[in-house]
Amino acid sequence: MQRYFINQPANISDNVLLPDNVAHHLVKVMRAQVGTRAEFVTNDQHVFIGEIFSIDGSKTFVKMVEPLKTQSELPVNVIIACGVPKGEKASLITQKATELGVSKIIFFDAQWSVSRWKSEKRDKKLDKLRKIASGAAEQSHRNVIPKIDYCDSLVDVARIDVSKKIVAWEESAKHGEHSALSQVFHDLSNGDTLLAIIGPEGGLSEEEIDLLKKQQVVTAGLGPRILRTETAPLYLLAAISYYFELENY
Amino acid sequence: MQRYFINQPANISDNVLLPDNVAHHLVKVMRAQVGTRAEFVTNDQHVFIGEIFSIDGSKTFVKMVEPLKTQSELPVNVIIACGVPKGEKASLITQKATELGVSKIIFFDAQWSVSRWKSEKRDKKLDKLRKIASGAAEQSHRNVIPKIDYCDSLVDVARIDVSKKIVAWEESAKHGEHSALSQVFHDLSNGDTLLAIIGPEGGLSEEEIDLLKKQQVVTAGLGPRILRTETAPLYLLAAISYYFELENY
Repeated sequence: MQRYFINQPANISDNVLLPDNVAHHLVKVMRAQVGTRAEFVTNDQHVFIGEIFSIDGSKTFVKMVEPLKTQSELPVNVIIACGVPKGEKASLITQKATELGVSKIIFFDAQWSVSRWKSEKRDKKLDKLRKIASGAAEQSHRNVIPKIDYCDSLVDVARIDVSKKIVAWEESAKHGEHSALSQVFHDLSNGDTLLAIIGPEGGLSEEEIDLLKKQQVVTAGLGPRILRTETAPLYLLAAISYYFELENY
Repeated sequence: MQRYFINQPANISDNVLLPDNVAHHLVKVMRAQVGTRAEFVTNDQHVFIGEIFSIDGSKTFVKMVEPLKTQSELPVNVIIACGVPKGEKASLITQKATELGVSKIIFFDAQWSVSRWKSEKRDKKLDKLRKIASGAAEQSHRNVIPKIDYCDSLVDVARIDVSKKIVAWEESAKHGEHSALSQVFHDLSNGDTLLAIIGPEGGLSEEEIDLLKKQQVVTAGLGPRILRTETAPLYLLAAISYYFELENY
């Protein structure tokens, strides 16, 4: 069943006027009619099956007929901070990380980022990524749309106040480090927030790694193979999901 | 350092004539000169640092100066069988699954595959995917290039003789199943082979799932979110890497 975020509160039996973009997709793209059902997520993460009871021009009304108890959010919050990547990679990271349960993605200017987001184009880029996140959250049946943000300073990223902070570091794996990531997972409890920092294509500089270590960020390898910048966040999120949702649920 | 597969045996101190495609990339694309070093993987998975000692037209010779003991292969072999996906997704799956350590990818015709690979175009498609796998194996510093294949029958895929077989099944997760995947990982030993079957965009039909169950294929959920067909193999491989290479190494 299609899922939509309606960005407003609702309760069982409520009649709800759908936001324009939701009504457009449901009625024009999916060709829904009176009687069609879909899943609607409220702004406080409740999910209802709703049934269309009236379509009047651009105004589509839905009655919430059944609450859904499904919970598809990771038990820990994961913030991924990515060095600004090249080309369309930010889109791929946003779509896939959303499917895999990320809470928030922050793109930051890294020392070796080949690509720079000029200030006049940044808002447009972020808007586009937020739309991708919203679509992917609906498609993967999440209860939350991840936040997408930008930060020009790695220092500010590293200072975010969270339970645990790691940085994916190739050199860590090269030196035979295996257990840092599983130790971090082990130390996290439900409701905690993990910040995971991942470099751009060129990686992070020694200087950046030193700066992060000073902010109590733990260096962790993601296995013995060299992962591309867009693959590393997906590895991390899949590993977290496996650990918290399948192995120790 | 660049890594290349030379598809021939070699020993320390050997002088090796590089295959044309390797010589072309190293000398023309990377602008290597006499004295430049790179990593070379032999056809029996040994890795050497080699140094160019002669470039004569299209003939480039390398001397193997130092063996590398790095091992970047997963301790278990993973065969991913994917329902033929739409558009460029086969390329994305091939690139990312290679980075994440897959041994072999088999694309199969699923009942609900929207896309079909016509027989006259199939070899060209497979050639392209094999090139992607080879490039991704070099880039991620693997010791092996994964095999890429096609099979027109899910029955034949299910009959492959391996240690364990699973099929990623959404319904499994919907019914609150958590532990099948971690049980399968637990039952695998180093050197074993796991076959993981993943449906195309439309998923697998009940009929296909029944057929797989009859072949002792275990249904396993990949967490509570609905993953796209190209995301599921990446989740699975990342989870396997986490389990075998970071948590229980």
